[in-house]
Amino acid sequence: MTTLVNRRTIRIEWGDCDPAQIVFYPRYFAFFDGATQELFRTALGKPKIEWVRDYGIIGIPMVDTRARFIVPSRYGDDVVIESRVAQFRRSSFDVEHKLLRGDLVAIEASETRVWAGPHPEKPGEIKGYPIPAEVMARFVERSGSA
Amino acid sequence: MTTLVNRRTIRIEWGDCDPAQIVFYPRYFAFFDGATQELFRTALGKPKIEWVRDYGIIGIPMVDTRARFIVPSRYGDDVVIESRVAQFRRSSFDVEHKLLRGDLVAIEASETRVWAGPHPEKPGEIKGYPIPAEVMARFVERSGSA
Amino acid sequence: MTTLVNRRTIRIEWGDCDPAQIVFYPRYFAFFDGATQELFRTALGKPKIEWVRDYGIIGIPMVDTRARFIVPSRYGDDVVIESRVAQFRRSSFDVEHKLLRGDLVAIEASETRVWAGPHPEKPGEIKGYPIPAEVMARFVERSGSA
Amino acid sequence: MTTLVNRRTIRIEWGDCDPAQIVFYPRYFAFFDGATQELFRTALGKPKIEWVRDYGIIGIPMVDTRARFIVPSRYGDDVVIESRVAQFRRSSFDVEHKLLRGDLVAIEASETRVWAGPHPEKPGEIKGYPIPAEVMARFVERSGSA
Repeated sequence: MTTLVNRRTIRIEWGDCDPAQIVFYPRYFAFFDGATQELFRTALGKPKIEWVRDYGIIGIPMVDTRARFIVPSRYGDDVVIESRVAQFRRSSFDVEHKLLRGDLVAIEASETRVWAGPHPEKPGEIKGYPIPAEVMARFVERSGSA
Repeated sequence: MTTLVNRRTIRIEWGDCDPAQIVFYPRYFAFFDGATQELFRTALGKPKIEWVRDYGIIGIPMVDTRARFIVPSRYGDDVVIESRVAQFRRSSFDVEHKLLRGDLVAIEASETRVWAGPHPEKPGEIKGYPIPAEVMARFVERSGSA
Repeated sequence: MTTLVNRRTIRIEWGDCDPAQIVFYPRYFAFFDGATQELFRTALGKPKIEWVRDYGIIGIPMVDTRARFIVPSRYGDDVVIESRVAQFRRSSFDVEHKLLRGDLVAIEASETRVWAGPHPEKPGEIKGYPIPAEVMARFVERSGSA
Repeated sequence: MTTLVNRRTIRIEWGDCDPAQIVFYPRYFAFFDGATQELFRTALGKPKIEWVRDYGIIGIPMVDTRARFIVPSRYGDDVVIESRVAQFRRSSFDVEHKLLRGDLVAIEASETRVWAGPHPEKPGEIKGYPIPAEVMARFVERSGSA
């Protein structure tokens, strides 16, 4: 029994890069957000627009994120992001991303997100809800499964 | 003698927000990058395009950043970012940002950047260079000055 | 009786620019979207999050836009966007933007948008609704007013 | 002898969408910029970072672009962009993009770009240069070739 890991290839584009010719770092956070979405899509077997609706939440907003940038990337580079949930808690969870350029770990990032729905009393505000056990169970990869 | 603090107001726009109606968090990192630029502009008295050229560097790329998201913001909100250099080292430095909504601290972020120029031996690569003492000196706010 | 014109200053940032050191053109469309929002905010006296709610619409999505890029801009440049509604029709309208660098017209852009709400029969889809006369009236600038 | 067409699939992400739950339209222009880059990569057999260097230019900046948005897209949608050069002139050229959702043409876009290098007399400025005949020739698809 191991943790589900999602791998996703991204081709760095001209528009991702800044005047220093390297990726403008906020773009990496957009890549990581997409990578977390793909991880959930793989685990839950459907796109975010469906599981958000099915579970009655509004999303999984970020509460804390950190990234260490070890090697820069340039337009034309193909990079791979490996993502997994490191820990589930009652209504929040941690995701870890490694961005690889070939064998090189170019970036290490971590994020803490909340399973968030509409606040029952304060209109327009959000609050954390317990993560369903069936959701957590989908992030465990049984031997023999893909 | 205190540290120079730069304050910058940002109006959150429709296009900064995601389907949950709150700011898509990678946008905050773009705001913080702009805030660091404005802090340097205030300190050095000229825009980045000039001081990058004057000091023969290619930029101040990020090596490590972290943000804690405490309160979400919505389009139409006006927020203030307060930024200061927390520490200078030989060729790297730390910046701290507070994003305020009224009196509320909505986000706390920190970043470590490098004073980077072209690598002398490896074309297309970059390396850290010593931060000039005169640059560091501009981030000290003398009493009586603005 | 003339048409209301909104003026908005934008400081071009490092992260708006690409490896050719000039603004990555999709960023201009984000600026223009913000400029249209500010034009409506000026006309209607409240932010989009409020008038969207007050009129029961979901937004003013783009159906057609064009931009001519005459002079490039660089990070550190301050540019001014002048925006006005060129024409209102039943449920759509045209906006024109001029982006100025000093006296120079750097970009001319036009957009056609729809006053759009939820589709009454098809869940998740949108459709155009008649633009309220009181909304149109706010884009006429009477002599003596700001 | 026909014109080379490049096809590229894009998965719409959460962060591409706005509070109306549909793609924030400036993102489409970033997609189209990437699509033009992929078209050139297919035609020239190498990434932009290489052909820009090989031909001594700084890029292919946009001078005029237009897009008609016919059907909106949502996060989780997979769309296909079909791109081709519609016309080459001496130092500028036109690209056409169709964004498809299944069989539906969701967006039609056109762009005029310049083959641009550093201005010989004005430092920091750019100017158009003649497009090499060998470049143009690569956009013709001979029967039997991929």
